[in-house]
Amino acid sequence: MQLYNYFRSSASFRVRIALALKGLDYEYVPVHLVRNEQLAPPFSDMTPARLVPLLKDGDATLVQSLAIIEYLDETHPEPPLLPADPLARARVRALALDVACEIHPLNNLRVLRYLTRELKVEESAKDAWYRHWVEDGLAAVEAQLTNHAATGRFCHGERPTVADICLVPQVFNAQRMNCRLDHVPTVMRIVEACMALDAFARAQPSACPDAA
Amino acid sequence: MQLYNYFRSSASFRVRIALALKGLDYEYVPVHLVRNEQLAPPFSDMTPARLVPLLKDGDATLVQSLAIIEYLDETHPEPPLLPADPLARARVRALALDVACEIHPLNNLRVLRYLTRELKVEESAKDAWYRHWVEDGLAAVEAQLTNHAATGRFCHGERPTVADICLVPQVFNAQRMNCRLDHVPTVMRIVEACMALDAFARAQPSACPDAA
Repeated sequence: MQLYNYFRSSASFRVRIALALKGLDYEYVPVHLVRNEQLAPPFSDMTPARLVPLLKDGDATLVQSLAIIEYLDETHPEPPLLPADPLARARVRALALDVACEIHPLNNLRVLRYLTRELKVEESAKDAWYRHWVEDGLAAVEAQLTNHAATGRFCHGERPTVADICLVPQVFNAQRMNCRLDHVPTVMRIVEACMALDAFARAQPSACPDAA
Repeated sequence: MQLYNYFRSSASFRVRIALALKGLDYEYVPVHLVRNEQLAPPFSDMTPARLVPLLKDGDATLVQSLAIIEYLDETHPEPPLLPADPLARARVRALALDVACEIHPLNNLRVLRYLTRELKVEESAKDAWYRHWVEDGLAAVEAQLTNHAATGRFCHGERPTVADICLVPQVFNAQRMNCRLDHVPTVMRIVEACMALDAFARAQPSACPDAA
């Protein structure tokens, strides 16, 4: 397998964690987003959406981090990244989507560029936008975690799931952008538990070959 | 089951389609987003994220449209909303996420409100923002559909999947906001095929009890 990705892309980080938890080897192919390498061949020829991460598995091309992670979980079931019970699976997927649909899309590089270039938003207002969606979004995740008996050492029970896989990269972004995090102690406790695991530590941006 | 939702919410529309395709009866509980009913009790007591749709199934509370749809598919397998093969499932999920993560989050009511209230963006620039993400995002979906042999009468083959379930509500929003759609003929052909099905037609906003 080859993973086309960028060290700082949090959707890429998710897939790196999943591959590491599954113990799967892969070739790391960097695609530099700030240099717009995703918009030009050879990468743009591989995927019309021109987004990282992209996973090549033999002849197959897979895109969208959550779809890739579900695929890895279906094709390499151990260790599972989702619980077995349908209600528990729904809870874990909902937590993952709370990050993937409610926080992350608003703070993508191309969205921040649109704010600056098209809407002429000043740097300070752009930073406030970033922090607003992260701080608000993580507060909603925190409330879901503290309100539910299934929250354990990780978002759901005693082993990492796709919810943790989405949460950790989002918190990394939050820290890089100096977001407030003292209002989400459960989130931070879980992130710490995740980062104590080798799979999460090895997948983090600073451990990537394309890190500055 | 009770579905807490809003006729015009496209994430709500997705779940209504899934319930209709599965032939499941449910009580329709309207939550008026423009009147901010989602932010106050009794709804806000049910979910810290304060987002529709929310599905009550017995004692269980489910949130996030895609997590709800996967739950319905796992607990009521017929007719399936995902293909059986892992690669095909990944393709369908990726198409769904192309809508749910790359288009829809940028045009949520609360995001549009932030543009107006916090960033003081003018109406015309806000409309341009809306159209930009829809038109660009649907172009990426179109390219994925035209580039792949598995595209059929629907996004994947000859019966509707979660990809169609996400696509149709997004196109409804696009039409309501006068977005350009002549660049996505395959998308429009598929939406037409979907709307010819009773399940999609019954789930559409204008058929909802809370429609104006």
